Amino acid sequence: MRLADLPTPAVVVDLAAFDRNVATMAAARPGRRLRPHVKAFKSTALAHRLAAAGHTAFCCATSREVEGMAAAGLGADLLLANEVLDASRLGAVAAAGARVTLAVDSDETVLAAARGGVREVLVDVDVGLPRCGCPPEDAGRLADLARSHGLVVRGVMGYEGHLMREPAATKGAQVEQAMAVLLAAHAATGGDVVSAAGTGTWDCNRWATEVQAGSYCLMDTEYQLHAPAFEHALYLWGTVVSVRPRWAVADVGLKAQGMDHGNPTVVGGDCLFVSDEHVSFAPRPGRTVAVGGRVTLLPAHVDPTVAMHERMWVVEATDGPSAGLDPDTAVVDEWPVDLRGW
Amino acid sequence: MRLADLPTPAVVVDLAAFDRNVATMAAARPGRRLRPHVKAFKSTALAHRLAAAGHTAFCCATSREVEGMAAAGLGADLLLANEVLDASRLGAVAAAGARVTLAVDSDETVLAAARGGVREVLVDVDVGLPRCGCPPEDAGRLADLARSHGLVVRGVMGYEGHLMREPAATKGAQVEQAMAVLLAAHAATGGDVVSAAGTGTWDCNRWATEVQAGSYCLMDTEYQLHAPAFEHALYLWGTVVSVRPRWAVADVGLKAQGMDHGNPTVVGGDCLFVSDEHVSFAPRPGRTVAVGGRVTLLPAHVDPTVAMHERMWVVEATDGPSAGLDPDTAVVDEWPVDLRGW
Repeated sequence: MRLADLPTPAVVVDLAAFDRNVATMAAARPGRRLRPHVKAFKSTALAHRLAAAGHTAFCCATSREVEGMAAAGLGADLLLANEVLDASRLGAVAAAGARVTLAVDSDETVLAAARGGVREVLVDVDVGLPRCGCPPEDAGRLADLARSHGLVVRGVMGYEGHLMREPAATKGAQVEQAMAVLLAAHAATGGDVVSAAGTGTWDCNRWATEVQAGSYCLMDTEYQLHAPAFEHALYLWGTVVSVRPRWAVADVGLKAQGMDHGNPTVVGGDCLFVSDEHVSFAPRPGRTVAVGGRVTLLPAHVDPTVAMHERMWVVEATDGPSAGLDPDTAVVDEWPVDLRGW
Repeated sequence: MRLADLPTPAVVVDLAAFDRNVATMAAARPGRRLRPHVKAFKSTALAHRLAAAGHTAFCCATSREVEGMAAAGLGADLLLANEVLDASRLGAVAAAGARVTLAVDSDETVLAAARGGVREVLVDVDVGLPRCGCPPEDAGRLADLARSHGLVVRGVMGYEGHLMREPAATKGAQVEQAMAVLLAAHAATGGDVVSAAGTGTWDCNRWATEVQAGSYCLMDTEYQLHAPAFEHALYLWGTVVSVRPRWAVADVGLKAQGMDHGNPTVVGGDCLFVSDEHVSFAPRPGRTVAVGGRVTLLPAHVDPTVAMHERMWVVEATDGPSAGLDPDTAVVDEWPVDLRGW
């Protein structure tokens, strides 16, 4: 099967670019020093490839991701890097033999972990992003509370998500400040894990014992600005359904891509707007667009985009984002996006 | 089961508000004068309720919606209000006994309809929105081309989507201009259908023989501004997982709601930002928020929000959007969102 034969809209992975991204990260963060974030790709097939590259500990954002990873034989060390009040599903996964660690940031979430049958936790610490995470000065007390309920405290977690888009010149110093907060909390909790960072800070966070990056392997136009070491490996693939002199329309709408980071990039065109099932775009001068032809888009945010598709289609290589996909390229594999929902 | 027992994030339908919305529309646009747009809810269970209210002709945006509606026994008159190049799936649905009509706006899409085994078409006409639709002056020629290939031309379709958000004072005159274009095209195509309008123009479009509205039955904060006759009937329902003095976090992220119309409205709070699996919000003064408590959100855009969920949960009634949902409310039904994907 060729790309021309695919039903559209579709998401397509450039396997060569993907493998280069994985190799770049693995060289700097080998093995357990990277804990790939499953939320970025929601696919056990893709995760198996990361495990083969040496990363056998994974980070999840939902209970379903934990369950699916364990069921796929990838349960050596699964962290749910999120707070939950019903931890019974995670306890069941642990009881079935997987290693499951849960983030906690309050008395309630500690008690929920113990009640649900989870055995190990990380204390989630606020390092500056106004989201989850306990006040840093509370980390030691929460660790003690957890231990008093029979939980093993593996260490701390702190996501400096507010710094992902900082200028490179100042990002390092700001990450150092955020990690100083996390390390102080770690001194109070004990354990051997300091889990932090992401695709936007992977290269300047020298304090995390493990980096929680996931988007790096597929990438998007937003992260391209903040993590230029990685290449676009994920494309949106559509069919042109209508052409007028000043615009054309393809079947890649906002139900096929995350819109929280704005419009996608249309290869060979300028995006005008995106509707439920359509993208209207102005073809660049000299670009011939015909009804029934294909169009390539670069997503603005990979995580929600992948989550809208049932599968990713895989090709061995492409000519890169400026060229777009070639309809004659052979499709060599299919990765089910099998960890969607909650 | 009560709302307190639901796994979160979830979408919840207020059946009383839904039924009032359906009744309001059906009073103005009874029976076939409304062609409910399935893309807004993607659920055959919900569609059956609209059919029971007298609306037995439906509008779809994808081939999968057409297939699913026909399989659910709702195939009396299905319009795919979109252009496709592979119409063979639609032809198969028609061959199995459903009535299927396809939008066409070019030679290629006319030929695709004939080749795919579709028997009836509407000529899709550009009435001002830079998306699909032929130049108005080309409608008659396309109708002739369609007939020369054995297709029945039922009439025209033209979506004045660019006018949905116009001020009420001027919207009517602008819709009249757009519909004048469509009626002129209709004179050239023949047929008895003039399919147009949506939730934003349902009350001022007096020229369409059938209105293509879908969002009206569930509603969202964006359409509330432009179609105040309808009530919020769809809620997002989440669990508070983390609380700090100045903000709280619930598990309703951007994978659980469409973000193309911006942030959701948090009942009793102000939305700060939305991440993959979290919404950070500032509770209003006097509003007590506790870890493990529940929170109600109003989606900004209903169509992509519903498409991210496997099911809608149904309650008999609520106290309305300013009060939010009550955890003690009984869940009386479950509507699978069974028409997702393509």
